[in-house]
Amino acid sequence: MKAFNFPDIKPVATSLESALMEKINNKTKPLGSLGILETLALQLGLIQNSPSPTVDKPKMLVFAGDNGVAVQGVSPFPQEVTQQMVLNFLAGGAAVSVFCQQHNVPLQVVDVGVNAELATVPLLTNHKVGMGTKDFSVSPAMTEAEFLLALGAGVKEVDLAHSEGKNILLFGEMGIGNTTIGAALMSALLSKPVKECVGAGAGSTTAGIEKKIAVIETAFTRIEAFYQQPITDLSPEVIAQELAGFEVVAMAGAMLRSAELGIAYVIDGFICTAALLLASKLNPHVVDYGIFAHQSHEKAHLALLAHFKAKPILSLSMRLGEGSGAIVALPIIQSATVFLNNMASFESAGVSEGL
Amino acid sequence: MKAFNFPDIKPVATSLESALMEKINNKTKPLGSLGILETLALQLGLIQNSPSPTVDKPKMLVFAGDNGVAVQGVSPFPQEVTQQMVLNFLAGGAAVSVFCQQHNVPLQVVDVGVNAELATVPLLTNHKVGMGTKDFSVSPAMTEAEFLLALGAGVKEVDLAHSEGKNILLFGEMGIGNTTIGAALMSALLSKPVKECVGAGAGSTTAGIEKKIAVIETAFTRIEAFYQQPITDLSPEVIAQELAGFEVVAMAGAMLRSAELGIAYVIDGFICTAALLLASKLNPHVVDYGIFAHQSHEKAHLALLAHFKAKPILSLSMRLGEGSGAIVALPIIQSATVFLNNMASFESAGVSEGL
Repeated sequence: MKAFNFPDIKPVATSLESALMEKINNKTKPLGSLGILETLALQLGLIQNSPSPTVDKPKMLVFAGDNGVAVQGVSPFPQEVTQQMVLNFLAGGAAVSVFCQQHNVPLQVVDVGVNAELATVPLLTNHKVGMGTKDFSVSPAMTEAEFLLALGAGVKEVDLAHSEGKNILLFGEMGIGNTTIGAALMSALLSKPVKECVGAGAGSTTAGIEKKIAVIETAFTRIEAFYQQPITDLSPEVIAQELAGFEVVAMAGAMLRSAELGIAYVIDGFICTAALLLASKLNPHVVDYGIFAHQSHEKAHLALLAHFKAKPILSLSMRLGEGSGAIVALPIIQSATVFLNNMASFESAGVSEGL
Repeated sequence: MKAFNFPDIKPVATSLESALMEKINNKTKPLGSLGILETLALQLGLIQNSPSPTVDKPKMLVFAGDNGVAVQGVSPFPQEVTQQMVLNFLAGGAAVSVFCQQHNVPLQVVDVGVNAELATVPLLTNHKVGMGTKDFSVSPAMTEAEFLLALGAGVKEVDLAHSEGKNILLFGEMGIGNTTIGAALMSALLSKPVKECVGAGAGSTTAGIEKKIAVIETAFTRIEAFYQQPITDLSPEVIAQELAGFEVVAMAGAMLRSAELGIAYVIDGFICTAALLLASKLNPHVVDYGIFAHQSHEKAHLALLAHFKAKPILSLSMRLGEGSGAIVALPIIQSATVFLNNMASFESAGVSEGL
């Protein structure tokens, strides 16, 4: 198939690293005493290749789509909840809505495959690839053409945000059943046993978790029979077409385009990190531009974060998706640039340095 | 000595607990999926005895004072840094200053014992008890009269904030040497070995940590010889007079008065938690009204938090004091009330509930 590897993504430039560390270390505070805020300030300075990075123009993009595998009963919620929650986002009543209002962050919902005809309103972008993916336990979730459309939807939304002057992007998702999709992608892309990648999601019982495992293993058997090779030997593009959701592929496209444009983006919980995993298999440098916001309560997230050697900013036992962890972490990411840009230095403040 | 136990502090009323949990559980999200935000929403509802608590009118109070024990070289910074940092707070260049600006939180600096004559400016309240405490390794840090003045300074500042309509208070401190004071109070009030209570503070080396331990043990020997009993048998008032700093006692007074008035307050790092320990020995119900913001990188903080069975909101490897951890956590505390007050319910949004 056509390679789609975003060749223009470059590793972040490190030429400013020592200048940034000197600036951080000369602030009126004991050396290293702002901890992870200092790590974030350095990362943002490198991403923007600036001694004074700013993240004062954020935008939240929530990608929504339905997933065929929901018919297997992998979620305690019915598939209709995807469209109901999209309407809730638009009405301002969902978690991500109220947190975006709190922090004055514009929220755009991107329909890449909700199984309903939704009214045209300004807060909702119609990039519908289809009325949801197919049930991956019985057929590929999407075609190559659909994969490219979904990826392109993420690219287009980031291009729009870039043209609006946004300097930090937050990504969220809504799609009943997509914890199962995240688990399947994690297992296939990382060669991990399915049972290590599956968790309670939105509230599955032990029996529900067993069902998710069985559904994913059925899909793997189908795929391996078709290709006559282990699923872990397939390309990431093929794995995505077999198993992913439109909203997950769109998030991966958005991350890749953010990295290509040198824009920092914020990684939410398990499903968002699974999208990053897919993106990183298309181009590994995408990871440099991402900020890990939140460690989900979803059990497998810890192992997925370990793959990226990531220590997220927050660990609040949240497991909601929608970008809720990303938006709750945003003020802390902004605090990193605030101290870097606004604090006095020992010299400017006339404060004596330590021994 | 005179008992000073704030008899009007009541345990928080729990009559609204089931109503609050029902409100939380009916929000459009999987059950429990907002994790610690839900715990915070419940705590704030109970503190304010309201199904719709609000924390939209915050105020930061930073108590500053010098500590005689600094002459023993327990900090890598000279004592002059206390007054220099107070001027930095007032000029807007310190960490707590820029984070308060970021979140639009008024910052008031309260001089309870800085060893310098400071100019009169609106952002600085003069409640000076003295020009710093005495070196506790050779004499009691303060007299009973000074203890009561320092405690009263905290009470007065909280009364003022209450009259201004503030509904959440953040406390910070500045005082070179006060990590050693926190360690001494922790050891004496919790009967823990000194070495388990001492850490690197603002950047002490191994030799510096050894010196802190020796200075505290010298003080304990002096005190036990004077009273002819183990230090752990002395009253918290006497322990505070022997070992505390004016800024630590003022913070304890501020916490006690906040609790008495039913106002939630935010607990910063190690020294602030040591002040809470003192306050809790005067009246244990004070703890109900405190929100643990931040786990400090200071080693002993974890053991001190364990005493309160506390899991702070943040763990960012910060160890700066000034209330910096409290102010960085504030938006997350506010997110707890935002979701509780502004999110739709399943019924109001027409979203199907899970199985």
